[in-house]
Amino acid sequence: MAGANSELVKYTSTADSEFLYYGHCKCINSVPATPDGKPTPGIITRTALQLADIPFLIVDAGSKIKPSIPYISFNVEPGGNIRTGAAVHFNDVKRLYDYGFMLGVQFAKTNDLIVVGESIAGGTTTALGVMIALGIDAKFKVSSSMPDNPHLLKNSVVSKAMEKSEIHYGDLKGEPFKAISLFGDPMMPSVAGIVSGAVTSGSKVILAGGTQMCAVVAILNSLRLPLYNISIGTTCYVAEDCFSNLVDLVKSISTDIPLYSCNLHLAESVKPGLHAFAKGYVKDGVGAGGISIATMLKSKGKINGTVLLKAIEKEYERLVEKFLIK
Amino acid sequence: MAGANSELVKYTSTADSEFLYYGHCKCINSVPATPDGKPTPGIITRTALQLADIPFLIVDAGSKIKPSIPYISFNVEPGGNIRTGAAVHFNDVKRLYDYGFMLGVQFAKTNDLIVVGESIAGGTTTALGVMIALGIDAKFKVSSSMPDNPHLLKNSVVSKAMEKSEIHYGDLKGEPFKAISLFGDPMMPSVAGIVSGAVTSGSKVILAGGTQMCAVVAILNSLRLPLYNISIGTTCYVAEDCFSNLVDLVKSISTDIPLYSCNLHLAESVKPGLHAFAKGYVKDGVGAGGISIATMLKSKGKINGTVLLKAIEKEYERLVEKFLIK
Repeated sequence: MAGANSELVKYTSTADSEFLYYGHCKCINSVPATPDGKPTPGIITRTALQLADIPFLIVDAGSKIKPSIPYISFNVEPGGNIRTGAAVHFNDVKRLYDYGFMLGVQFAKTNDLIVVGESIAGGTTTALGVMIALGIDAKFKVSSSMPDNPHLLKNSVVSKAMEKSEIHYGDLKGEPFKAISLFGDPMMPSVAGIVSGAVTSGSKVILAGGTQMCAVVAILNSLRLPLYNISIGTTCYVAEDCFSNLVDLVKSISTDIPLYSCNLHLAESVKPGLHAFAKGYVKDGVGAGGISIATMLKSKGKINGTVLLKAIEKEYERLVEKFLIK
Repeated sequence: MAGANSELVKYTSTADSEFLYYGHCKCINSVPATPDGKPTPGIITRTALQLADIPFLIVDAGSKIKPSIPYISFNVEPGGNIRTGAAVHFNDVKRLYDYGFMLGVQFAKTNDLIVVGESIAGGTTTALGVMIALGIDAKFKVSSSMPDNPHLLKNSVVSKAMEKSEIHYGDLKGEPFKAISLFGDPMMPSVAGIVSGAVTSGSKVILAGGTQMCAVVAILNSLRLPLYNISIGTTCYVAEDCFSNLVDLVKSISTDIPLYSCNLHLAESVKPGLHAFAKGYVKDGVGAGGISIATMLKSKGKINGTVLLKAIEKEYERLVEKFLIK
């Protein structure tokens, strides 16, 4: 429900994190969904995590409502409206990166593969803003949680933000932390830090998502960090979306970053409600695509897209019965 | 510096957690120490963690000052003064246990041994209170961070608290959460939950500490949870302290719980400042003893007490140079 309803969006990431733990939410009386009832991709994430018995932890880097779960606090305010020119306090950007790095180092000690996902409302617009400032031609390439991708709206928001800060395309090529503080969000330095700490300590990382994870890669690249052992993992619904262009976007940032996508066969589901993902709604998020790939890897292919689909349908069925979603 | 100075104690656990990550503190300009300059056992913990490359995470369950690190928030107020009869809100006790359980389940997925330590001011008094309420004769058996163990003071605090609540010895044998809410602290249900979640999911647990971890075992026992794969690990300075009686205390709670202690040879150190631990000051804390044991286990004995001592001396030397501690 990224950006669609300003009263509800502040609950999105919180509700998603609670859903992963409990299979229901504490902060709202339903499952996270778009205003027209499309359910959260957290359904996929939760199913995949359970199926392959993959442990997970939630990092809170700026949620407005704190989730009723044990979460790792990065102790930061929600990101600001980029049109005002103050997205994240500059000092917080560096600190969030450092906190992420510390955490990544710890995670790497007992995990050879770490998947990092996100749930943030309006995140593709801030991703666009940061990439433009870093000199990456991301216009019309970024993804959306809606089928009618509002590229013009996003471009206009970013243009206004850049005008206000008197920053032009590529001006902040070597200053990613400044780019984040002006046009980004608190997720970016946090995830960049986790990735950096993890790979420095010998772990591999899947950045689970599309556009927003491109922004993270662009930040790491701008910090001149070596981009080894890092890949992007998403669903085919993002990777093959004809209203955005993830493949070219990744290539334009770095040719060192493999992009993996998985087919979850949701178009073939016996549950019509799940077709939405394949029809351009939601598509990915809450790490769904990346975690699905990790599940396939961990099970050495025993859990494939078809096995996963059956389990997702079961989880969806449970939700339909419990919350009467469509 | 448990209990010795009411202005400083609120920084103890916060400073300890920062020290483990950074080797110095952010919330104070020195290392955590008793008012007479005895350094925190966190020196031992940090050294042992680094030596065996053991990952660690910090849980905040009620610190007054939030640490400048990424920490797992259990989102709870500091524990109240037990003399007022309101140590922890009853609803929070159950919630903290549940949060701990959720976390223990996650930790167990990638760790076959989990060490849980604590840093809380005045914790041996709340441990005494809870154990007395649960019908465990812990008087004169609990440990202290000072050589002149103030047993009478602790007994008197607990007696007053029990009088106020009209609870007598053993009255809450089957109601550990009520005992915690009246006489305990937020650490207890949090750690009990972590242990419970971890062993339920197949991991082994070392409860790192003495008296306070006895209270945790007493709580688990009272909840009628099977006490398998759980041990207590501490330093010989606690286990062999003649002003307390950990061995008998553990036995009086359960004969299923092995008690391990390690000799860190601190009495033989070339650094006189480290003799304090062996002379009855501090003795253990911040998981020092349990983590030292885990370090020995992980290294299959390659890191023994003598190797550890050399590394602790080096860390101590660094601190002497940096902070001019004695």
